[in-house]
Amino acid sequence: MRFASLDDLRAVCRGLPGGEQRFADTAARRQQNLTKPPGSLGRLEELAIWLAQWQAREMPRLDRVSVAVFAGNHGVASRGVSAYPPAVTAQMVANFVAGGAAINQIAKAASAELHVVPIELDRPTRDFTGAAAMSADEFLAAVDIGYRAVPENCDLLAVGEMGIANTTAAAALCAALLGGGAARWAGRGTGVDDDGLERKRAAIDAALKFHHDILGDPLAVAAAFGGRELAAIAGAVLAARRRHIPVMLDGFVATAAVLPLARLNARALDHCRAGHVSAESGHRDLLTALKLDPLLDLGMRLGEASGAGVAILLARAALACHSGMATFAEAGVAHAGD
Amino acid sequence: MRFASLDDLRAVCRGLPGGEQRFADTAARRQQNLTKPPGSLGRLEELAIWLAQWQAREMPRLDRVSVAVFAGNHGVASRGVSAYPPAVTAQMVANFVAGGAAINQIAKAASAELHVVPIELDRPTRDFTGAAAMSADEFLAAVDIGYRAVPENCDLLAVGEMGIANTTAAAALCAALLGGGAARWAGRGTGVDDDGLERKRAAIDAALKFHHDILGDPLAVAAAFGGRELAAIAGAVLAARRRHIPVMLDGFVATAAVLPLARLNARALDHCRAGHVSAESGHRDLLTALKLDPLLDLGMRLGEASGAGVAILLARAALACHSGMATFAEAGVAHAGD
Repeated sequence: MRFASLDDLRAVCRGLPGGEQRFADTAARRQQNLTKPPGSLGRLEELAIWLAQWQAREMPRLDRVSVAVFAGNHGVASRGVSAYPPAVTAQMVANFVAGGAAINQIAKAASAELHVVPIELDRPTRDFTGAAAMSADEFLAAVDIGYRAVPENCDLLAVGEMGIANTTAAAALCAALLGGGAARWAGRGTGVDDDGLERKRAAIDAALKFHHDILGDPLAVAAAFGGRELAAIAGAVLAARRRHIPVMLDGFVATAAVLPLARLNARALDHCRAGHVSAESGHRDLLTALKLDPLLDLGMRLGEASGAGVAILLARAALACHSGMATFAEAGVAHAGD
Repeated sequence: MRFASLDDLRAVCRGLPGGEQRFADTAARRQQNLTKPPGSLGRLEELAIWLAQWQAREMPRLDRVSVAVFAGNHGVASRGVSAYPPAVTAQMVANFVAGGAAINQIAKAASAELHVVPIELDRPTRDFTGAAAMSADEFLAAVDIGYRAVPENCDLLAVGEMGIANTTAAAALCAALLGGGAARWAGRGTGVDDDGLERKRAAIDAALKFHHDILGDPLAVAAAFGGRELAAIAGAVLAARRRHIPVMLDGFVATAAVLPLARLNARALDHCRAGHVSAESGHRDLLTALKLDPLLDLGMRLGEASGAGVAILLARAALACHSGMATFAEAGVAHAGD
């Protein structure tokens, strides 16, 4: 296994490599010379500069874009916290494989390859209200699966998830690391009713009480409150960082999955962008806490990397402008003030 | 000429056809059965339903998407209201034709065809501070050019513009029809400095005073304060409405161009979506006045249909999901509550 212990993983999180500022500078200079008022492409300019910095390339590219969707099952589902039965996780994985889900269509529209990684769906995590969802070894194994799912030579990675009851795990993780209890973080997920939302809140608050002694340890929290698909996302984001691959995050669950990394290292998510802000109620608050400014706000709340997948289209538009536009000199267009 | 008089055009604006609700209903029912929690694709669902309604098709399509960029020059440019000299309008048109501008790259990324329509660039409108920018006939001729620029058989039209000083015209138009004076509507456009902004405000307020007797007539206002490229956008949006073509609007200038239509008929823009909200200061206020909720908020402020062009990508993602996803029954996935 890649990480022998939580201590080993913690050390890796604290020693992550930075981006390559000189490539960001080169890209920013190019943006200044393209035939448009400086800054007028807004976040498309910023995306191009970000790609250059984290790909460590003079001229970034998006030849190979990967979408990784991790799936896991959750013991806490037995507490009636979701509008859907746990069997839907495996049914949706089958739908991904058959090409019938939203992310299949979005990945195709974004010319991205899709990797679907179900993780021990027949072995749900433990119900976290009375036990750690995962042991340290189970957690590290899932991190490792995510780490290994990232292609060596990919230019952009989008990460997402599927797992009935995983907005409960994500909300619990946020509450454990950022405070505010279930009231701050529990939302309706796939569309739970009032009673279900009440059960969801109760489960989260019970778990916070049960695990109160580990709340200061982000990785212990990730193991106790999270899920295998969340752990795998964290692993994939770490792998991307070490392989010069920028990352597009998806919604509430995918963002909660990397919160433990950010608590260990304030720069851990510098290579990530938030593809969108979800309609799931806690996501905006979580993005604010992480200082991530979402690219899209379309009221999406599906997971599956669907929001991140749509955001890949923005990265493609950004790169197309960065690579394809003429400079003022090339086009014979007068600069401002000429 | 298509419209013999302002009265003729006014009558057309007041008698526009509606969308086809039954196709919207069919699309909405399909969205309910796709393998995702109902509503979880947010505005992507709304976009698919909108395409169905205004294309009047059971299953909408985006086989042929057109981007129309109209260009014009403005007499008020002589008052030093822009950071760029008026010659840049023609230079940028040449850049569009050569393929070097942002919209060329964005249209290509969106698989859209680009139509560039310069309108009498060597004959700027009159300086509107002391005369109508255009006579009624000049205005109607430009409307007609826009009307004729729309392909008969296109599935989605994005409209945008290029014209040095045209944020001054757009701001004046908004002030004339929505009130609040230059202070409410004048922004920095391509990046004018403080002195330039002061000159811009002064020109707008002078024009409001000079033309005070026509402020109640939206088409007279469009002729007196607008520009040829703005008139052409209005014409293109009318043509699209009559040909079952949904429209993606661009930024501040393109939206100001259709404001007169909305003042004549509160439903005139029902077939339009706001592709984005521009960083140009007046745009958000204008969208609110028109009850248009922008799809993107990326800090863009370039014009050229660049924001609308990026929004085409969202429409493509929406359509891909609508057309390509499996239903619950097809995929054997349990519904909520099963």
